This record gives sequence, C-alpha cells and structure tokens, in this order.
Amino acid sequence: MEKKQIALGVFLMGTGHHMASWRHPDVPADGFEDFNFYREVAEIAEKGKLDMIFLSDGLSFHRLSHPAELVRLDPLTLLPALAAVTKKIGLAATASTTYNEPFHLARKFASLDHISNGRSAWNVVTSYYEHEASNFSKKEHLAHDLRYERAGEFVEVVKGLWDSWEDGVLIRDKESGVYFNSDKLHSLNHEGKHFSVKGPLNASRSPQGHPVIVQAGSSEDGTTLAAQTADVIFTAQQTLEGAQQFYKKVKKKVIASGRKPDEVKIMPGVSPFIGRTEAEAKEKYEQLQDLIVSEIGLDFLSDYLGGMDFSNLSLDDQLPDEIPKTNGNQSRRELIIELARRENLTIRELYKRIAGARGHFTIFGTPEQIADQLEAWIVAEGADGFNLMPQYLPGGLSEFVEQVIPILQQRGLFRKEYDYSTLRGHLGLLMPESKYSALKTR
Amino acid sequence: MEKKQIALGVFLMGTGHHMASWRHPDVPADGFEDFNFYREVAEIAEKGKLDMIFLSDGLSFHRLSHPAELVRLDPLTLLPALAAVTKKIGLAATASTTYNEPFHLARKFASLDHISNGRSAWNVVTSYYEHEASNFSKKEHLAHDLRYERAGEFVEVVKGLWDSWEDGVLIRDKESGVYFNSDKLHSLNHEGKHFSVKGPLNASRSPQGHPVIVQAGSSEDGTTLAAQTADVIFTAQQTLEGAQQFYKKVKKKVIASGRKPDEVKIMPGVSPFIGRTEAEAKEKYEQLQDLIVSEIGLDFLSDYLGGMDFSNLSLDDQLPDEIPKTNGNQSRRELIIELARRENLTIRELYKRIAGARGHFTIFGTPEQIADQLEAWIVAEGADGFNLMPQYLPGGLSEFVEQVIPILQQRGLFRKEYDYSTLRGHLGLLMPESKYSALKTR
Repeated sequence: MEKKQIALGVFLMGTGHHMASWRHPDVPADGFEDFNFYREVAEIAEKGKLDMIFLSDGLSFHRLSHPAELVRLDPLTLLPALAAVTKKIGLAATASTTYNEPFHLARKFASLDHISNGRSAWNVVTSYYEHEASNFSKKEHLAHDLRYERAGEFVEVVKGLWDSWEDGVLIRDKESGVYFNSDKLHSLNHEGKHFSVKGPLNASRSPQGHPVIVQAGSSEDGTTLAAQTADVIFTAQQTLEGAQQFYKKVKKKVIASGRKPDEVKIMPGVSPFIGRTEAEAKEKYEQLQDLIVSEIGLDFLSDYLGGMDFSNLSLDDQLPDEIPKTNGNQSRRELIIELARRENLTIRELYKRIAGARGHFTIFGTPEQIADQLEAWIVAEGADGFNLMPQYLPGGLSEFVEQVIPILQQRGLFRKEYDYSTLRGHLGLLMPESKYSALKTR
Repeated sequence: MEKKQIALGVFLMGTGHHMASWRHPDVPADGFEDFNFYREVAEIAEKGKLDMIFLSDGLSFHRLSHPAELVRLDPLTLLPALAAVTKKIGLAATASTTYNEPFHLARKFASLDHISNGRSAWNVVTSYYEHEASNFSKKEHLAHDLRYERAGEFVEVVKGLWDSWEDGVLIRDKESGVYFNSDKLHSLNHEGKHFSVKGPLNASRSPQGHPVIVQAGSSEDGTTLAAQTADVIFTAQQTLEGAQQFYKKVKKKVIASGRKPDEVKIMPGVSPFIGRTEAEAKEKYEQLQDLIVSEIGLDFLSDYLGGMDFSNLSLDDQLPDEIPKTNGNQSRRELIIELARRENLTIRELYKRIAGARGHFTIFGTPEQIADQLEAWIVAEGADGFNLMPQYLPGGLSEFVEQVIPILQQRGLFRKEYDYSTLRGHLGLLMPESKYSALKTR
C-alpha cells in the first residue's frame, strides 16, 4: 500500500521565526522588506517541492517584540510578486476578517488564483491586538466570540462571492458578440448580522474554484469554524499526545459538519534544528538563543500573556499561580502557561523557549532524526503534514530542503516532483463545485 | 535650450479601451484575467521607456457595458506581479477612498514601492456607483461633496502614515542588538471626521518617500483636492482649447496651494489610431466601431449619464434638452452632454463616440501626424504629458511604441533610455521629506 503523503508548508515571518534571527551571521538583517530575500526563500521552497509558502501578518506596529511585528511587507502585495517568479508552489497569505471587507478579500484571493494559475490560499484570522483597532477608526477590538461570529459570516460571504460566475459562463464569442451567459451569473444578495453584500464578484471563478482556506484558531470557537469551513488547519502542538488529541477532536468536528475527515488537513507548526549530530543541532539553537536581548524577550512574553505585568517579578521566578485573563489569543496563552507549569520553567527560561519557536514544536537532530520525528507524528495520527517554521532564513529552510526532504522522498513519504499545478492538487483536495451548478446537477 | 519632456503613461482597461476590443481579430478575448497578457503589455510599455502603466478599477459588476466592468483583476494584486517581471516602469493602481481603510492602502502602496524599488503610484478615486455601495454593507453611496471630503482626509492620513518611519530609523546593528532608533519613529494619532488612525505604519519609509499620487477628478472639488495633494492629474479633454483652460486653472490652484506648478504633472488621456495614411487610421477605428452591439452601447451611454432612461427615444434622436442630474461622476457627464450638443450627435452617434475612447481625446493619423498633435499640446501648454489609452491591446500599444516613440525621441521630446529607476525620477518629481525630519531641519 502506498504510504500516506506528508503535506509541507513553510511559514515565513520576516527573516526567521526566532526573534533574534536578524542578528544571525548568515541572515540579511534587512531581508524583511527586500523582495529578493523572499524570492530566494520561495525558490528554495519550490526546489524542495513544498506544498506552499505561508505568510504571517499583523495590522499594527508592536514596540519591541519580533522585528516582523515592527515592519513587514503586506502578504497580499508580496505573494503576487512571488507568483510571477515561481511555477508550482502554493501561496498562502494571512488576512484578517476583523478589519477587512469580504468583497475586497474575495476579489484579491481570486485575482491571485488567476495570476498564479490556481495556487492561492487564504489563512483566515481574527485580529486581537488593541493597537490594531486604533489603526482602523475603532475604539476597541471586538470580543472573542463576536470576532469569531464575524469571521464565520465573512468566510461564508467570500465563498458565496467566489461562486458568482459558474464555470462556462464566459462565452466570449467574437462572431456573435455574446460575452457571457447571464443565466450562469449570480448575485449573492447576502443580508447578515455583520455584512450585507449584493455581488456578484467582479472576478470570474478562479482556477481552484475556491482558493484554499487555512485556519489557525485552536480554541473551541476556532476549531468549530475551521471544521466547517477550512481546508487546512494550522496549529501549535508541543507534544505528540497533545497533537493526537487535537487531531482526533478536530476530525470528529469535521465529520459532524458533514464533511469527510480527509477534506481537512491538520498541519502543526514545527521548527527544526538540523546538525551532523544532535549536539550540533542544539548548539545551533543556543547560538540563536544567546542573541536574545532580555528586555525584548520579556516584552514578548508579556505580549503573549495578554499584556501581563512582570515588574514585581525576577527573571528567575516562576509564573505566579494566578494569571489575569484577557481578550487576546486564548489558545496560545494557555499553551504557554501549560508549558511553563509542565517543565517548571523560570520566566527567563520561558521567554527563551517561546522567543524562538513562538510556542511551536521545536525538534533537534540529524536529518534522519528529524525525518523520524515527522514520520512518527504522521503515522500516529498527530498530523497530516507540517508547517515548517525555520528559525533563521534562508539557512534554516535550505538545510531542511537539502538534507531532510531527500530522506522523506526515499521513504516514500513525500513527492519527488510536483504532480499537479494547483495547491488543491498538491494537497489532494477536490475543487469545490459552485453552489449554483450543484443545485442544477443534484 | 533642452525641450520640455513629455510624460507618457499607458492606461489599461482590460484588453483595450474600446468596449468591443475583445472582438478584434488580433486581441485575445480572455486577456482580462490572464497574467501573461498583462505581462506582454507591460514589457511592450517598458521597451517604449514609458513612465508608467496605469490600471483602472471598479468595485462592482456592471451588467452589459465594457467587459472590464464585468470582471477584472484587482490592480493591487496584478501590479506586484508585474513589478517582479519589469525593471524600470512605474506602476500605478486605481484604489477607492470610499470603501477602503487608509491603513491598508498606505501599507499596500508602501509595500509595492519596496518590492518594485520605488515605482509605485496610487490613483486616488472616489466610488460613485450605487452597486458599489451594496457590495460594502452600505445602503447608498456618499454624496459627491462628502466623498471628496472623505477622500481629502484619507490622503492626508495615508501620507502621514508614510512618514511614520524617518530615514535612518532602522539601525539593525547585529553587534549591539539595537534594531531601530525609537526617536525617529512616530505615531500619527490622527483624529478626524471620517477616520481615527493611531499608527505608526508597519512598513518603513519606502524608496520614493511617498509613492506618487495620481488624481483624476476634474470637477471643482476634484481639482482643488488634486492641486493640494496630487503629483499627477489625469483628465479627459476633447479639444486643445479645453485642455489649455484646464491646464491654466489647475496650475493656478497648485500655486494657490503653496506648491510650484512643476510639482504637478497634467496628463490628459489620449487614444491614438495609427495608419500609413490618415484614412487607414480612421478605417482601423471604424473596424472597431462596427463591432459594437447596439444595446450594449446604449446601456453604456445611459450609465455615463447617471442611469438615464432612453426607452422613449429613437437611436436617431438627439439628447433631450433636459437631462436629470444624478449623484454620479459629474465632470464626465457634462463632458458627454457638451460633446453631443457641440457636434449635434444622434444618440447612436454619441454612444459610438464614447464607447471607444470613453470620452477621451481620440486622434488619427500617420505616426508623424500623431507625434505632431502630441507635441502641439505640450508646446501650447495643454498638457505635461499623456495617458495613452490604446483601444485594443497589445496591438494599439505596440504600434505606438514602434512607430510614434522613435519620432518623439528624434525630436528630443522623449527619453531614449531610462535615466532613473524610480517613477518620481522618470517624472522629474522630488522625493518628499518626512514631515518629522522637516521639523528638525527647518
């Protein structure tokens, strides 16, 4: 029997996931806003036959913290440029449902899908920082449940707009002068709590039908929405046991939503350090850790814990028993508290742990050891694939592509060449039928 | 003395300005959503050393009318892809101030400026179709004066955000770990009638300082706003006399705003038909005119006159004396009515006239005759340059580049090679100083 194939994305955040990556001797410190830097990274990823490039985003400046949270190129501006210099790799952009309009995003992702011949994907997020609200004429951000309610309606509208033009609607018959068949064009006429959108979209049905939907919320609200609407779920899991529980829970929700478990791919983030020995891999990690400036590390931890005040604590203390709840990202906050308690980490140890992988699973070893760990998670149903989070770029990615990918290929776990030209093809996802065509044929 | 140089842009609307261009035998009817089509057009324009490519836009579907008003790629998604496959040509995208947020647009145009190394431009427009409102959860569109008020505040916020990071703020010293100089980073803290935006922008100051601002409103409100804030004014002028009056009026307003007349370039649209003889040029025009489907032409005219009802009129009638005023594009409506009255056109003749150039100046002739007419407008102070509006693509543009550009170059009116790598450089515009740097140095 053929082995289950691993899906692999690479998640890009500036010059690497590690907050101090820019200080690494091999990293171009100004890569954050340099197209040629991203072009090189995309070319390496495509050489490795990866499923997709995945761009993180945020809609505000964060003082201190990761440099990508100071300045970063807009993903929906960067990805079209990368589409023009790559051929096969999928292109996923993070875009917020909190401070956007569904018509704009539906059109942009459809346009990217046309331009890239079917490689576009949208990582659906809700915005949760106070300062993001203040950049968009809002006094405060929406509460967690309202953000998810809005996100659900937002995705519904976007998918509806993507169905505006059925396949075959554009006739373009030069002889008769008939441009399109108006029977196959549909207004959405959506009237909801958060949006009213008439449509139709002024972009025709794109090569993938619907661009791929990615979601990253791991809270109850988040996974429920993802199980109903996403093609890919991106999650942070620290242990195989945790990953298995999450996998089982989400696939159950997928089935409960009337979908097949295979229609949703679960891809935890993983941050690999590769060496000739495990010790060398750990040395590479420590080399980066030593570059963290302590006040920045602390500011970062505070941010992840919803603005927690550390002024009465020493760096050698552990987290206090009571940590005030906030209206920010819930699942990440809980993950970090759990990590601190599980391993009895001091505050300094804790910020160092999350500053690199930002709460994601970090693995160390030889290329074989890395491949073993990835394979183990796939076999044990902890994941359908991974979102690689190289801690410094382009080195962290090129090492993986040159050293680990060939092993996965030899083991029959990963493609040697692209079999398809669309991201849906790479991921083994079907092209959704337009809801209007479906009505006629069923 | 060196001759005044002509600025030249090419304004793209699908496969050509003419509504029937897609039926032309040499035009790819499906070019509207094909990246390779736009890539070819951009390469021709860059071969011709043009200042910029200029993408029109709209935020809704229009039944009948020009095919680009049915479906068209989002300009801010298409231009980054074109940036990756060109080197020097400027890249201007139309984006509405009515249904966008200043933070998003400031960031997207700054990102495009980074990606293209200083070639980004924003054509600032207000949205005026009813159906656009209904795609953005609005019951009706803003009235004309409120749209312009909002547009003025929008541009002010965008420019303020572009100044967030002063030159030299990003230190990125690997040794010390200092990433930026917080003295040179500024929050905008804008509180206005339409927007409150805190900032700073999460994009650093881009290669042009401020991407080039283009404006196309020719009404009193439109020209006042443009004189205060634009670098380029795009206008529709049918006659040299009209163009001269407009030129004089706008340059006066520029001076009244405390700017130098040269700081704003006036570029009327011009639609050239080139033949070996003038008669052959006119034949090319008639070939396209004959491809117009009459009900589409009528629908188009009605649209430009704010939804006017023609059901009681024959195609051979002239326009009635009274034409109801609407809340749409005023300057274009008046231009069309004036054209009909001046030349005593029937309704059929009128829609045929505007269906091609869409109210812009159409010229016919040999390459020399075309060059003569362009030169005459420059010499007589009717224009600083032109926005070419080829009526079919890529043919209408490649003929101009191959046959007219060499003549303009021989006459010393147009560059033979690019002297600069930024759009501001091509246009002879200075890079604006950050308002915060200006405070320190003046």
